[in-house]
Amino acid sequence: MAPKGFPELLKEHEDELVESLLHWSLSNGLIMYPPNYAKYQANNAPITLFPTPFPKKLYENAIEVQEVFNELYVNVISKEKEWLIAKIKELSEFDQSFTGELFNIYQKILSENGGKLKQELSLGLFRSDYMINSVDETIKQIEFNTISVSFGGLSSKVGKLHQYLNNSGYYDDKYSMKYYDNEHIPISNSINKLAKGINEANYYYNDQTHNTKTVILFIIQEGERNVFDQRHIEYSLIENHQLKSYRLSLEKVQEEVVINNDKLYIKQTMDEVSVVYYRSGYGPNDYTSSKCWESRYLLEKTLAIKCPSILTQLSGTKKIQQILTNEEILKKLLPKIDTKTYNQLLSTFVKIYPLDDSEEGKYAKKIISEDSSKFVLKPQREGGGNNIYKEDIPKFLQKIDEKDWGAYILMELIHPPKYSNKIIRNDEIYNEDIISELGIFGSIIFNETTGEIKLNFESGHLLRSKFSSSNEGGVAAGFGCVDNIYLYE
Amino acid sequence: MAPKGFPELLKEHEDELVESLLHWSLSNGLIMYPPNYAKYQANNAPITLFPTPFPKKLYENAIEVQEVFNELYVNVISKEKEWLIAKIKELSEFDQSFTGELFNIYQKILSENGGKLKQELSLGLFRSDYMINSVDETIKQIEFNTISVSFGGLSSKVGKLHQYLNNSGYYDDKYSMKYYDNEHIPISNSINKLAKGINEANYYYNDQTHNTKTVILFIIQEGERNVFDQRHIEYSLIENHQLKSYRLSLEKVQEEVVINNDKLYIKQTMDEVSVVYYRSGYGPNDYTSSKCWESRYLLEKTLAIKCPSILTQLSGTKKIQQILTNEEILKKLLPKIDTKTYNQLLSTFVKIYPLDDSEEGKYAKKIISEDSSKFVLKPQREGGGNNIYKEDIPKFLQKIDEKDWGAYILMELIHPPKYSNKIIRNDEIYNEDIISELGIFGSIIFNETTGEIKLNFESGHLLRSKFSSSNEGGVAAGFGCVDNIYLYE
Ligand SMILES: Nc1ncnc2c1ncn2[C@@H]1O[C@H](COP(=O)(O)OP(=O)(O)OP(=O)(O)O)[C@@H](O)[C@H]1O
Ligand SMILES: Nc1ncnc2c1ncn2[C@@H]1O[C@H](COP(=O)(O)OP(=O)(O)OP(=O)(O)O)[C@@H](O)[C@H]1O
Ligand SMILES: [Mg+2]
Ligand SMILES: [Mg+2]
Ligand SMILES: [Mg+2]
Ligand SMILES: [Mg+2]
Repeated sequence: MAPKGFPELLKEHEDELVESLLHWSLSNGLIMYPPNYAKYQANNAPITLFPTPFPKKLYENAIEVQEVFNELYVNVISKEKEWLIAKIKELSEFDQSFTGELFNIYQKILSENGGKLKQELSLGLFRSDYMINSVDETIKQIEFNTISVSFGGLSSKVGKLHQYLNNSGYYDDKYSMKYYDNEHIPISNSINKLAKGINEANYYYNDQTHNTKTVILFIIQEGERNVFDQRHIEYSLIENHQLKSYRLSLEKVQEEVVINNDKLYIKQTMDEVSVVYYRSGYGPNDYTSSKCWESRYLLEKTLAIKCPSILTQLSGTKKIQQILTNEEILKKLLPKIDTKTYNQLLSTFVKIYPLDDSEEGKYAKKIISEDSSKFVLKPQREGGGNNIYKEDIPKFLQKIDEKDWGAYILMELIHPPKYSNKIIRNDEIYNEDIISELGIFGSIIFNETTGEIKLNFESGHLLRSKFSSSNEGGVAAGFGCVDNIYLYE
Repeated sequence: MAPKGFPELLKEHEDELVESLLHWSLSNGLIMYPPNYAKYQANNAPITLFPTPFPKKLYENAIEVQEVFNELYVNVISKEKEWLIAKIKELSEFDQSFTGELFNIYQKILSENGGKLKQELSLGLFRSDYMINSVDETIKQIEFNTISVSFGGLSSKVGKLHQYLNNSGYYDDKYSMKYYDNEHIPISNSINKLAKGINEANYYYNDQTHNTKTVILFIIQEGERNVFDQRHIEYSLIENHQLKSYRLSLEKVQEEVVINNDKLYIKQTMDEVSVVYYRSGYGPNDYTSSKCWESRYLLEKTLAIKCPSILTQLSGTKKIQQILTNEEILKKLLPKIDTKTYNQLLSTFVKIYPLDDSEEGKYAKKIISEDSSKFVLKPQREGGGNNIYKEDIPKFLQKIDEKDWGAYILMELIHPPKYSNKIIRNDEIYNEDIISELGIFGSIIFNETTGEIKLNFESGHLLRSKFSSSNEGGVAAGFGCVDNIYLYE
């Protein structure tokens, strides 16, 4: 069945909908700080007026593979550690100042502690992102994020907003009935599920250290405009788990913490930290000085459970993603996987090529020299705004030494369906074609040395949409917006 | 026992508290539009950093008398209607353009319908306001509000905020423990209780009219900056009672509604309105044109239950309040009252004098001509900013004809205790002595003709505080702020 079309509203009814949407967003924390903000004033977050159609089957597929994907990356980190480290070493050559620095910290900590980690337990809060491939109606993975996954907070909120608007009849021009069946516009429970992940890690830490009163440390960026997204998780931690959290930037960590017997404490109160949750530290810009690198080092070598650990963070690089699309490697990493699930995983992959001297790399170099219009070139970076698209690829590569091309991967472009939903930013409405990216959150607690998985669960969803005319989709960066799914069969 | 002092925090810890307070307020709708606002941007509401001490016993007193006060006013309206009408007639003489207009509408509607109301059921959402009298540690009633009582929304929120700050250890400088026992800083459940009042009225309407699908109509001011206070009640209506609400200003009512067989409908959707809830219409400024008066007339003569009806609104004038402090009248209005409750009511009254030709009036004129420093002069107005204080009273009275003095009442000033709490507006902190006013909300559904009370319940609390140096305490007007109680024994 085709999805219902978007509600068509008279101008004056759309105005009413917009006012209600703004009031609801402001009343319920579906907000963001604007650029150059004052701390006491916030704006509604950029969102869509309506949920965007998404085939139910494909949403279910994405949900179904989440725990396997969580496990896959954990296996990379724990069971194929040597191999992962070798790869990271290679990447470090290309990217000494970031990947290299992270890897140095990892090595230094091991060597200082007789080759072992102080804390073997690790928390992963992951997000696997997909777009629909229009041609064969499958979901294709854009990337697998292993650090600082965002919008779990605002995603729950936008789902509630769309249901509120639907329940209030704003989507039905004539009779103010529910336009959608609420079951078809499910609310992501990511706020509570991500908080649950953190709370479970806290539990394991306390169990290990015979502790009871511990706190969570959020490592954050100074001036974070998307702070409310994080705060919603903090509020769930304290409300549902009586678990307090602190917030520190990498710049401030050293002044504000004390380490004693490898345990991490907040200096002011001597609260002991069970989990260090990074919402910063994923890119070079987060390390504004050597002080930040030292902070990272100090945090990493404590007993606190890191979300994520350095190896977990580095397992999420684009290079690893590329390698994992190899069928043999995939099977090796998931030896017990059944055929159905294996095929499901495989079906989410598009071709990703290395740009090195391997056979595959040579092949990739050849095809883009002929036609680069079907590809996106990605460096080993997180946070958006780093990719090079289509015709820009050859121009870009020309400017760098061919021996450095290995730092990039070349990925087939996915062509998702377009929808003419409406986006609201502040109070401006944009009625352009949009394309959407589905993210599925996942939480996993595991032993980085033994590979034992303590807990692994899917943790809600996120739909982000952007103008189909723009290449990137970062919400905070201003290209995209938070959306929600309207499931149809 | 004396209350605990306010938390004393180091500057840097207060800064942390403030940041957390701002983030929480913005995330949870403890907000207000600033002057000249854009619809997509809101500020944290002015609040106190800490809850303000309030003797538990006095809080309980206020709670205990709420339902009796609700009943008292309902009895004025229904059982002493003739008397009330006579009083209103007198007041109309002084105030033709407001009280007079309201009274005209009331009379017109009766005369058009054979002396009867179309809808005899009436909903009261009231708030009785008190200050503590320092001298004898009793609560004294400031006024009894029968229309558009506000801050039931933000009050619930500020209670939650203070508990969050307390639970998070922000009030304890050293150990981040809970500074207060949460039981001592109770959260007002006014959002849900006021919504329950409205929902119950909706139920009675449906019962009467054999209806199922009805909606609530909020009559609002254009450009209301305190809109989120109202919205929280709307969200509770839809979330907890699946009850939709519309918002219309008196200006817009006529374009947007249809009346058919005395039933009120929203034109666009033909949703039938069960309850008209006035959050506007309480003062002359709300009637910007004759159109607004017509709107009021149109609404009043429908079958929809009004909150409040015209008589209910007018029963809340200062003049009636003054008369009700008379012991005999009080007893007549509450014939079945037990002595304890009767004394409790009486103990909340300060002297209020008329300024007319009665014996009491003459006496009042005499005492203020000698010393007006212990009094406040009040006109028959709602919404703050109308009172005349102390030394200003004689000057003010001189300017008006003595025959018009009857439009005012003269009230003894209450002298509440001062506390050096801190107020935050935007991100500025004011550390001045404050005084506080406790409001208790009450909901009542009754038959205006028979006096039968269908439902009567206390509906949460509100503490508003203001600099002790300022005379008035309006929050939206910028003089005061929303606070919460810290109960001590
Ligand atoms: N193969 C692809 N086909 C189509 N669009 C793509 C593809 N890969 C990436 N994009 C677009 O580029 C955006 C950024 O890519 P990607 O998510 O891989 O980069 P990133 O730097 O890790 O960003 P972030 O972690 O902030 O999401 C995606 O959100 C998507 O809109
Ligand atoms: N007897 C009194 N003693 C001390 N202060 C008083 C007294 N009466 C009124 N006030 C102060 O003046 C303010 C306004 O008075 P009141 O509430 O009676 O007026 P209003 O116009 O009905 O305002 P609103 O309905 O907006 O609260 C009170 O909130 C209180 O701060
Ligand atoms: Mg991405
Ligand atoms: Mg990424
Ligand atoms: Mg008042
Ligand atoms: Mg009043």
